[in-house]
Amino acid sequence: MDYTKILEEIYSEITPLLSKGKVAGYIPELRRVSKDQFGMAICTNDGDEYIIGRAEKYLSIQSVSKVFTFALAYKNFGEKIWKRVGREPSGSKFNSLILLENEKGIPRNPFINPGSLVIADMLYKKYRYPLNEVLKFVRELSGNPNISFNTSVRNSELKYANINYALAYFMKSFGNIKADIPQLVDFYTSHCAIEMTCVDLARSFRLFSQQGNNPWSGEKLLTSSQAKHINAVMMTCGLYNSVGDFAYRVGIPAKSGVGGAVVGVIPEKLTIAAWAPGLDVNGNSIAAVKALELFTDKTGLSIY
Amino acid sequence: MDYTKILEEIYSEITPLLSKGKVAGYIPELRRVSKDQFGMAICTNDGDEYIIGRAEKYLSIQSVSKVFTFALAYKNFGEKIWKRVGREPSGSKFNSLILLENEKGIPRNPFINPGSLVIADMLYKKYRYPLNEVLKFVRELSGNPNISFNTSVRNSELKYANINYALAYFMKSFGNIKADIPQLVDFYTSHCAIEMTCVDLARSFRLFSQQGNNPWSGEKLLTSSQAKHINAVMMTCGLYNSVGDFAYRVGIPAKSGVGGAVVGVIPEKLTIAAWAPGLDVNGNSIAAVKALELFTDKTGLSIY
Amino acid sequence: MDYTKILEEIYSEITPLLSKGKVAGYIPELRRVSKDQFGMAICTNDGDEYIIGRAEKYLSIQSVSKVFTFALAYKNFGEKIWKRVGREPSGSKFNSLILLENEKGIPRNPFINPGSLVIADMLYKKYRYPLNEVLKFVRELSGNPNISFNTSVRNSELKYANINYALAYFMKSFGNIKADIPQLVDFYTSHCAIEMTCVDLARSFRLFSQQGNNPWSGEKLLTSSQAKHINAVMMTCGLYNSVGDFAYRVGIPAKSGVGGAVVGVIPEKLTIAAWAPGLDVNGNSIAAVKALELFTDKTGLSIY
Amino acid sequence: MDYTKILEEIYSEITPLLSKGKVAGYIPELRRVSKDQFGMAICTNDGDEYIIGRAEKYLSIQSVSKVFTFALAYKNFGEKIWKRVGREPSGSKFNSLILLENEKGIPRNPFINPGSLVIADMLYKKYRYPLNEVLKFVRELSGNPNISFNTSVRNSELKYANINYALAYFMKSFGNIKADIPQLVDFYTSHCAIEMTCVDLARSFRLFSQQGNNPWSGEKLLTSSQAKHINAVMMTCGLYNSVGDFAYRVGIPAKSGVGGAVVGVIPEKLTIAAWAPGLDVNGNSIAAVKALELFTDKTGLSIY
Repeated sequence: MDYTKILEEIYSEITPLLSKGKVAGYIPELRRVSKDQFGMAICTNDGDEYIIGRAEKYLSIQSVSKVFTFALAYKNFGEKIWKRVGREPSGSKFNSLILLENEKGIPRNPFINPGSLVIADMLYKKYRYPLNEVLKFVRELSGNPNISFNTSVRNSELKYANINYALAYFMKSFGNIKADIPQLVDFYTSHCAIEMTCVDLARSFRLFSQQGNNPWSGEKLLTSSQAKHINAVMMTCGLYNSVGDFAYRVGIPAKSGVGGAVVGVIPEKLTIAAWAPGLDVNGNSIAAVKALELFTDKTGLSIY
Repeated sequence: MDYTKILEEIYSEITPLLSKGKVAGYIPELRRVSKDQFGMAICTNDGDEYIIGRAEKYLSIQSVSKVFTFALAYKNFGEKIWKRVGREPSGSKFNSLILLENEKGIPRNPFINPGSLVIADMLYKKYRYPLNEVLKFVRELSGNPNISFNTSVRNSELKYANINYALAYFMKSFGNIKADIPQLVDFYTSHCAIEMTCVDLARSFRLFSQQGNNPWSGEKLLTSSQAKHINAVMMTCGLYNSVGDFAYRVGIPAKSGVGGAVVGVIPEKLTIAAWAPGLDVNGNSIAAVKALELFTDKTGLSIY
Repeated sequence: MDYTKILEEIYSEITPLLSKGKVAGYIPELRRVSKDQFGMAICTNDGDEYIIGRAEKYLSIQSVSKVFTFALAYKNFGEKIWKRVGREPSGSKFNSLILLENEKGIPRNPFINPGSLVIADMLYKKYRYPLNEVLKFVRELSGNPNISFNTSVRNSELKYANINYALAYFMKSFGNIKADIPQLVDFYTSHCAIEMTCVDLARSFRLFSQQGNNPWSGEKLLTSSQAKHINAVMMTCGLYNSVGDFAYRVGIPAKSGVGGAVVGVIPEKLTIAAWAPGLDVNGNSIAAVKALELFTDKTGLSIY
Repeated sequence: MDYTKILEEIYSEITPLLSKGKVAGYIPELRRVSKDQFGMAICTNDGDEYIIGRAEKYLSIQSVSKVFTFALAYKNFGEKIWKRVGREPSGSKFNSLILLENEKGIPRNPFINPGSLVIADMLYKKYRYPLNEVLKFVRELSGNPNISFNTSVRNSELKYANINYALAYFMKSFGNIKADIPQLVDFYTSHCAIEMTCVDLARSFRLFSQQGNNPWSGEKLLTSSQAKHINAVMMTCGLYNSVGDFAYRVGIPAKSGVGGAVVGVIPEKLTIAAWAPGLDVNGNSIAAVKALELFTDKTGLSIY
């Protein structure tokens, strides 16, 4: 199937939404990004690619990076990761300390901030240079050797990282963080500041649409079962406090980031990345979510 | 594909689990059900049926009835239902009042008790005899004219319905319940006391695997989009506080009830109902969940 | 000491506040009360009385009645009451269900709604006609045989009693309420609808300023220790979510009601009742609290 | 009145309690303190002093120090302090982050950890060497120039200070902490590690029983109104999650610390300090609280 025309329709339909929402305000560097931008990329398992708009512009992937660090930790540690992090939707704000307090320092899932800090702690222990390993992993998945993180975004976020410091110290008080916290938060903030294009993101997520195989070489990076598991966790935990609404409207596993990216997986078929900077109150891109909704509506490719 | 052998394997593998868990203790009539029972039924969209164990024994469907009342309300009121109930996972115990208080009387989703009470309130307003309509609906879907509710289970549950009374009065204080509460709780408790077999349940859920068509006549009862939406809500909200774990392990939309039933949908392929009375701490049948997990493992039919 | 002049000063100083605040909106009968009213009465242990403004006008005592029912229950059951109700400040809204859920149906203290419902449940079990006993008790304490409850306020509140029904059913689900709930809520709502004057209230509270003695006969109704205990519970739990602020500004044990009354005790010295209908966001009378603050400021009679 | 005999009775009556409770386990240095110790000191406003047991042994004052830092900040900043900290009882565990999250970084009162960290932040901004100022203040109040803090307790607590780091960073994310956090937590932990005797504590608290006057020179350090206010805040917030119970049983303003000290004020009469290391589940010394209860029982000096 040729998605060219569908992408054109989508672009036209979401254009009025680009003025809506707010750019992530708490990250000074991101605040300067113009809202009037949109990009989208599709990679089918057959090897076809379709793009529209600014699909090749570098964007700050932010929380989308949590899927990569989670996959890397899961690849290394397997089911043992579930001793330190849960896999249930949080039902509350993405950085809530309340659940952490009730649940004795075990974060609800690996995609909320505290859960991703625990994942970072695992990688920090495993690797001498964990950030390099994450970069290596996303370069390998995307096939783009130029991917890096934006130091000025990282520095700017570090200045406002008080809540992540609080989360990390709080979990440390329960014994669920081992690393030195300033270094851990630096690593976490750095991997959130990685920049990739929609094309890079869609290509990388083929790991999940292709049963854990390296999208380029076909090499088995994750077992088929692990790839399915990651899709399941994205479905129930990937969109902050809007997982139910996203499942209802779009109906595919996906992960969003406050940089404005939303990346989805249609298992055994294709991957899809959309980007637009304007966010709704839950921190999800208004136009990118709508673009994915239009895509599954027009193609009938929701998994339900 | 012939699922006979797979069902036999599953039965054999889950047998050691039948001694585990607790029968729903707060419902005196259910407490007497012997744990040493298991049934399972599969209905493919091609019209084949496979059964094993006590698949034709009547069981108390309990919260599985919430899918039927929700479908009936959704059919009648369409998207308007979302003004009075949300569609996000609750992230906490299935009868929690805390969320209700924080969210001003709007329950998180239609499958937690307060949400299903709001759905019951809608049906109560719509129909003179709402229970008859629910029974008519499940008899039509299952093709079994003998389905009814168990009055002694209903009566026994009504004696212990204080928490549902509390939930209903609490939502009434926010204006989100209109009906007379003793009558509403009676209706709600009655539809939870409906008895069906695994075969009945699997046949009925074809409404959701067959894009909203009457499983027998093919008549359009729900739009294709509505059927997908119900599957999505089951995926993110159907298993109380274990939606993430169930998505991870089983990977299909499903609804469980404290009677021990779990009924799942593999869209456009088949439906599957399993039953065993022993429950885990979250109120889900240990052996029935495991049976579904084994089924998607063995067949690769998880939707991820 | 002669408090005549101080009362005149206070009246003059609080007059500008009478236009402030809102009359209790959720009780239709009370909504009609004009805000432009103020009354105050002082009864010293020496037998002197001082009044100003509408100190002899009947007002709806509302939650002030909880002190009388608590005293009656404490007199009858002694320390056993603490098995079913706590004595810690709630730290949250006066009808919050959250704490009840966390604390398994044991209300924080006898002055929040659920705590007072438990006290009502105790009296309901003890007496055939509990409301008569409460009326008898306040008539005896105040020396006013004409005190009664306002049936139209009671009826009007009963129509909006959903939250109290919810609280009662919720506690019943934990086994901490025994009575039939419609009858219990009727009794509770009736005693809240008792009408007394500031003079009646100040005279009655001499039970607590005079070490548990009948203010008229000197007969021992409560032990000296019990009277002190009731003062202590008023100090830490008597003003809804403003106990800390009231202790800070006024510095005496007191109880407020949404009818606009605040009644205080200066142990071994005097009692003081003030009334003005305009309430702050916490449900306390703005002018009456200020009147008590001015009184302890001017006299130095704070207990600190 | 001569309290010698009463102190002897109290010592005898509390002796069986000395084996009860747990020494503060989370502070390694304190864990080594033997539970079999008790001391008590009384200072009347007339200048008499009564002591018993180990009233002259240095103990770790821990949270009692929060009264001194609060008094010093209140003296310096007056009513402005209430912009950054509340004065209501917390109704939950003394280091709870939940309330902080709900209340946007404004701690409930100056005696819970986050509230005292905010007070420390104020002093940190005011003074170049805030710890020296606190030491100077307690030396002046107690008349004991040898008071200092225990560096090994401080160091040992700093190793386990994750929760205080978390609280401080969390409040910083709301803008309610300005100082560099490692330095702030160091200052806070140091003032908690101050060591004083029961005699020192009772002498110092005369500031609050003597209307804000320097206990030795009579110089006005706080206004009379400020001294009353501090007593009121102790009454409603001084005993962690047991303020209601303490008001009920003892009936005087007081502050406790996990070192085992409880220091109380009977305004315009006397001060009283008791110490015993065994703590109840709320972190209050079992024997010291009981000693104060026996004291007000035997003397009738409760303020109620």
